[in-house]
Amino acid sequence: MPYDFETVIDRRATNSVKWDVKPNELPMWVADMDFKTAPEIITALKAKADFGIFGYEELPAAYYQAVVDWWASEHQFRPQLDSLLFCTGVVPAISSIVRKMTAVGDNVLVQAPVYNMFYHSIENNGRHTVSSDLVYHDGHYAIDFDDLETKLADPLTTLMIVCNPHNPIGLVWSRATLQRIGTLALQHHVLVLADEIHADLTLNGNQYTPFASLTPDVAANSIAAVSPSKTFNVAALHAATLMIPDPTIRARVSRGINNDELAEPNSFAVPGSIAAYTQGRQWVAELRQKLAANQRQLQQFIQTELPAVTVIEAQATYLVWLDISQIAPDSKVLADEIRANTGLFISAGDVYRGDGRQFLRINIACPTAELTDGLQRLKAGIDQYQAQH
Amino acid sequence: MPYDFETVIDRRATNSVKWDVKPNELPMWVADMDFKTAPEIITALKAKADFGIFGYEELPAAYYQAVVDWWASEHQFRPQLDSLLFCTGVVPAISSIVRKMTAVGDNVLVQAPVYNMFYHSIENNGRHTVSSDLVYHDGHYAIDFDDLETKLADPLTTLMIVCNPHNPIGLVWSRATLQRIGTLALQHHVLVLADEIHADLTLNGNQYTPFASLTPDVAANSIAAVSPSKTFNVAALHAATLMIPDPTIRARVSRGINNDELAEPNSFAVPGSIAAYTQGRQWVAELRQKLAANQRQLQQFIQTELPAVTVIEAQATYLVWLDISQIAPDSKVLADEIRANTGLFISAGDVYRGDGRQFLRINIACPTAELTDGLQRLKAGIDQYQAQH
Ligand SMILES: Cc1ncc(COP(=O)(O)O)c(C=O)c1O
Ligand SMILES: Cc1ncc(COP(=O)(O)O)c(C=O)c1O
Repeated sequence: MPYDFETVIDRRATNSVKWDVKPNELPMWVADMDFKTAPEIITALKAKADFGIFGYEELPAAYYQAVVDWWASEHQFRPQLDSLLFCTGVVPAISSIVRKMTAVGDNVLVQAPVYNMFYHSIENNGRHTVSSDLVYHDGHYAIDFDDLETKLADPLTTLMIVCNPHNPIGLVWSRATLQRIGTLALQHHVLVLADEIHADLTLNGNQYTPFASLTPDVAANSIAAVSPSKTFNVAALHAATLMIPDPTIRARVSRGINNDELAEPNSFAVPGSIAAYTQGRQWVAELRQKLAANQRQLQQFIQTELPAVTVIEAQATYLVWLDISQIAPDSKVLADEIRANTGLFISAGDVYRGDGRQFLRINIACPTAELTDGLQRLKAGIDQYQAQH
Repeated sequence: MPYDFETVIDRRATNSVKWDVKPNELPMWVADMDFKTAPEIITALKAKADFGIFGYEELPAAYYQAVVDWWASEHQFRPQLDSLLFCTGVVPAISSIVRKMTAVGDNVLVQAPVYNMFYHSIENNGRHTVSSDLVYHDGHYAIDFDDLETKLADPLTTLMIVCNPHNPIGLVWSRATLQRIGTLALQHHVLVLADEIHADLTLNGNQYTPFASLTPDVAANSIAAVSPSKTFNVAALHAATLMIPDPTIRARVSRGINNDELAEPNSFAVPGSIAAYTQGRQWVAELRQKLAANQRQLQQFIQTELPAVTVIEAQATYLVWLDISQIAPDSKVLADEIRANTGLFISAGDVYRGDGRQFLRINIACPTAELTDGLQRLKAGIDQYQAQH
């Protein structure tokens, strides 16, 4: 059965953060998709609603089993059942882990440009961000391992957040790269927190490596955060899972998320997640085809219509990183003008820090009609910017 | 249309914390009800499930409007629309407020015996609990205001948590009492956090006074937490609202709950709450009748069958506080024996501290058939305890 990724659904006035825009605007920013989730999930949520009693919930074994089985079949890695903890979200987990596993004033290492909420989780909790910026060259990003090691070696660095796949550049880190990062971190007593929320959305044959699947010593020094939220478009289901191979680290993180009131599932989180992980395989396979097709459509359009823009090819995620340095010195100004002139709302790259000021991020998880509209607005906006500057 | 509060629903194997018990056991402990919620809420939740997209949510004006209108019609007090903040729960809010509005090492004042989670929120965050114990005399509880003022006057006391209605003793504090507490707190620079989660469940004509409805100076020094969770049996909807009249305190608490990742609603929290507050009035009216009837059934049963037990008459809540001091020196031992011998699982009072060791707490929010079963087990358990000790 082919699932439907083409019907345009009106999300205005549905409390959507993404679609809280003016009537003529087209939002392609916040990372949720304009597709309905898998019908199997909707059925499970309705069954839960029908049950009608919504008292305090605990995690059944079936929840963790579903996660383990999904990882085994989708990612060729079977986490230990008892290594898993439920949490209400990936960002909530990151914030809580920053509070619990580091001290005020410590450094938390990231690799900019990276998902902007990392900075909030670090800095709003009184820690310092240190970045080993990714090095951009010729349309590709790479790690400067000398720089990374220097920053890991700083005794004030106690945690490193790895984003794999890496939002917003769409890179899927190789096993060798992750093992090298993990080995250095271990050597310098830096705990690794791997945000793997985009793990299921690899494209064009790229494979993701779970951090927990690295060598046991490196895995034991890590926490990975996963979730059905990006994969199945269920961000507000408020369900995520932490993979923590080491029992002591796990017990500490468990105290942290419990203390922070992030460890209890809402009524829908468990049945929704179980349906996703046990019945959602075919839907995700088709989704990834659709995202790859959207990526091709964007690439072809930009190649012919906006040749001054360089597309950083995403190996994963539905977020595309566009190098606009040949067009504008500051992507924030460009993004603002595109929005003002065409209604297309996309993200300026500055919030991701690093070299983000020369990039735009566009969310292409939408039906073809919307994407086509968005690309035309993008061209109109850039043409107008160039005409005026 | 009369709603159904008599059908016994099997909650075993539904991930329920309350019903995670042995096959022969009957749980009457955790504060959720064995009734289905209002059908109007179920309809709203199913409509949301059907929509099928579960992206990031924000709070619509209609949410706050529904809260304000409910308070106006149910509690004769109309909070300012802009005084309200959404939060994922009352306990999450309390924990976050303790972290944000007090310092490590401070004292937080409570009135024991009181809801045990207060102690967790205070102590797990490195603050100290100070209690101005309620004074029990002749089946009634009262505040020792001299003691209360001494403890408020301690410069290390920076927050007081008022429970109104007061779980587990079922007291509804009068306007005069609340005003007196609030005035003293203000005078001693102690912020008041009023947990009003049981506000809608007053019984037998008792009226609850919202803390935010006190004189403006006292209200401005307060935060109140309310929720549809107890009222409508939707604890795992993860929806609560804070009433914070003062804009500076509100802004600080808002930063706190955002930083703690407790400020974003899941997909179902908003539609469920709106349905509750706009369409749930009749259901709650009938629920309160049912709870009052259950209270009478319990009182009559205990009077005739267990005269050594004193029932503290609850003016609100479906939790009944039973004085068992004539039967056992330690209610924990008694509760354990009742559970072991009859399968009835009720709460020993010690976790509420104060004089809790001489009390049991029983949750009577269930169909008549269950209550009758529970009372018979209670009698059998107490008889057996008395025969053996
Ligand atoms: C890398 C990354 N982590 C986390 C999140 C959000 O996670 P959650 O909604 O579970 O807090 C996002 C959303 O875009 C993301 O891109
Ligand atoms: C006084 C009181 N506050 C708070 C709660 C729980 O609130 P929530 O589930 O919203 O965290 C309870 C539950 O029994 C309660 O009795």
